[in-house]
Amino acid sequence: MINDGGVSMKKKQFAVIGLGRFGGSICRTLSEQGMEVLAIDIDEDRVNEFASIASHAVVGDTTDENVLKSLGIRNFDHVIVAIGDNIQASILTTLILKELGVNHITVKATNDYHEKVLKKIGADQIVHPERDMGERIAHNLISNNVLDYLELSDKYSIVEIVASERLDGHSLLELDIRARYGINIVAIKRGTSVIVSPLASEIIRKGDVLVVIGADSDIDRFEEKVVG
Amino acid sequence: MINDGGVSMKKKQFAVIGLGRFGGSICRTLSEQGMEVLAIDIDEDRVNEFASIASHAVVGDTTDENVLKSLGIRNFDHVIVAIGDNIQASILTTLILKELGVNHITVKATNDYHEKVLKKIGADQIVHPERDMGERIAHNLISNNVLDYLELSDKYSIVEIVASERLDGHSLLELDIRARYGINIVAIKRGTSVIVSPLASEIIRKGDVLVVIGADSDIDRFEEKVVG
Ligand SMILES: Nc1ncnc2c1ncn2[C@@H]1O[C@H](COP(=O)(O)OP(=O)(O)OP(=O)(O)O)[C@@H](O)[C@H]1O
Ligand SMILES: Nc1ncnc2c1ncn2[C@@H]1O[C@H](COP(=O)(O)OP(=O)(O)OP(=O)(O)O)[C@@H](O)[C@H]1O
Ligand SMILES: [Ca+2]
Ligand SMILES: [Ca+2]
Ligand SMILES: [Ca+2]
Ligand SMILES: [Ca+2]
Repeated sequence: MINDGGVSMKKKQFAVIGLGRFGGSICRTLSEQGMEVLAIDIDEDRVNEFASIASHAVVGDTTDENVLKSLGIRNFDHVIVAIGDNIQASILTTLILKELGVNHITVKATNDYHEKVLKKIGADQIVHPERDMGERIAHNLISNNVLDYLELSDKYSIVEIVASERLDGHSLLELDIRARYGINIVAIKRGTSVIVSPLASEIIRKGDVLVVIGADSDIDRFEEKVVG
Repeated sequence: MINDGGVSMKKKQFAVIGLGRFGGSICRTLSEQGMEVLAIDIDEDRVNEFASIASHAVVGDTTDENVLKSLGIRNFDHVIVAIGDNIQASILTTLILKELGVNHITVKATNDYHEKVLKKIGADQIVHPERDMGERIAHNLISNNVLDYLELSDKYSIVEIVASERLDGHSLLELDIRARYGINIVAIKRGTSVIVSPLASEIIRKGDVLVVIGADSDIDRFEEKVVG
C-alpha cells in the first residue's frame, strides 16, 4: 500500500540572504541539519563568519540583479531573505528573486507595511521573528508552570506543564486527569528522558514535565486547579 | 488528594520595558490575555501607541534608578527588558531592577557577549528572539510537510506533518504507523477542527495535519518514506 522503497531524494538547495541574527541562525541550523546552503551578505565580515559553516559563502549586494543571476539563484529550491532594517533592499531583492523565477521565497518582515508589500509582490512565506517570539514568550510568562506549547487550533493546544508538589507520588490512574479534565498526557519529560504514552500506573514526580493535549480551557483548568 | 477548591489568585503584575517589535508583542499578548501590564519606553510615540493596549503606559528612561523607583517597580511580579540595540541601556536597566529586588526578570539578549553579562548580573531568563525564531523556521523549511514542532528533548519531538496523497483514504489501522515506525498520532487537524487521540478506524484524508510524537529518527523515517 505504501511504497517504502528507496526513492532517491535530491538534497534541497537553500540560499540565505542576510546573515544577521535571524538569517545567521537559519543558515547555521540548516547547515547543522546537513542541508546545502549558500550564504550571501553585503558585509564581508559576516560572510567570513559563515565561510566554515555554510556550503558556500559569498559577498554580494542582492539588490543587483546580476549578482543574483551570476550565483545561479534560480536553481535553488528555497531562498530566505533575512534583510531586516533596510526595507527597500528586502523588497527589491524579493522582486528580483520572483522575476528570476525562484520557486519558494521566505522573507522576514519588519512591520505591517513591509508585510503588505511583500505579499503583493508574491513572497511565499512572510515571517515576523520578533513579534512571533514575543507572543510565545508572553504565553510562557503568564504561567510559570507552562514551559512551551504548540497551538493546534484556536481552541486546542499541546502544552508542557511542570508537575508541582501536589502531584508528587500520585499515579496517572489516581489523578484520573482524562476523566476529570478531558485532557490527555501524551508524554512525560523526566530529566533528560522522555516517556512517550505513559501507562496509567506511572507515578508522577515533582519537577516532571507533563506534555498534555486538549482544549485550552480544560488545560487552563488543570493548570490552575491541580498544578498551580 | 487534590485541592480543587477556589484558591483566590492574585492577578500577576507585569512590566514591559522597551516597546519595539519584541517588547510590543509581549505587551500586546499579555494584555489580550487579561494581564495587568505596565508599558515603559523612552520614546513618547511608542508609549502613545500602547496607551490603549496596556493597563498603564509611561514615558521614562529606565537607566535612571529614580524613574524605576517612582513607578514602584519592585511590586511587579515580572519585569521584561526588551531593549535590544542599546546594550548598555539593557544591562544598566537589568542591574537596577536586580538592586531594587525585582523577583523575576526576563531580558532580550542581542549577542553572546550581552547574554554573558546578563547571566552574571542575575537575569532570570535570557531570550534571543531572532536566533530562536531562525532555528524554528529552519526546521520548518527542511521539510515542506512539517508545519510546526515542539522539541521534547534532543531525541524526541512532537511534529505536525501534512498527509500526502499517499495516505489519502487509509485508516490508521491499515497504516499501522505505531508498529511500523514506533510513533504515535496524538491528534489530527482537519480544516478548523482537531481530533484528539484519533481511533484506529479514523480514515486519513489528503491535507490532514497529523500531529505525531516519537523519536526524531522515527519521525524522519515516517516523514520521508510515507509522507514525502
Ligand atoms: N542589499 C543587501 N544585500 C545583501 N545583504 C544585505 C543587503 N542589505 C543588508 N544586508 C545584510 O542583511 C543582514 C541583516 O540586516 P539587518 O539590517 O536586519 O541587520 P541585523 O539587525 O543585524 O539583523 P537581525 O535583526 O537578523 O539580527 C546584515 O548582515 C546586512 O549586512
Ligand atoms: N533607556 C531606555 N529606557 C526605556 N526604553 C528604552 C531605553 N532605550 C531604548 N528603549 C526602547 O526600547 C525599545 C526597543 O529598542 P530597540 O533598539 O531594540 O528597538 P527595535 O529594534 O525597534 O526593537 P525590536 O528589535 O524589538 O523591534 C525602543 O522602543 C526604545 O525606544
Ligand atoms: Ca534588525
Ligand atoms: Ca490558543
Ligand atoms: Ca532591534
Ligand atoms: Ca531534535
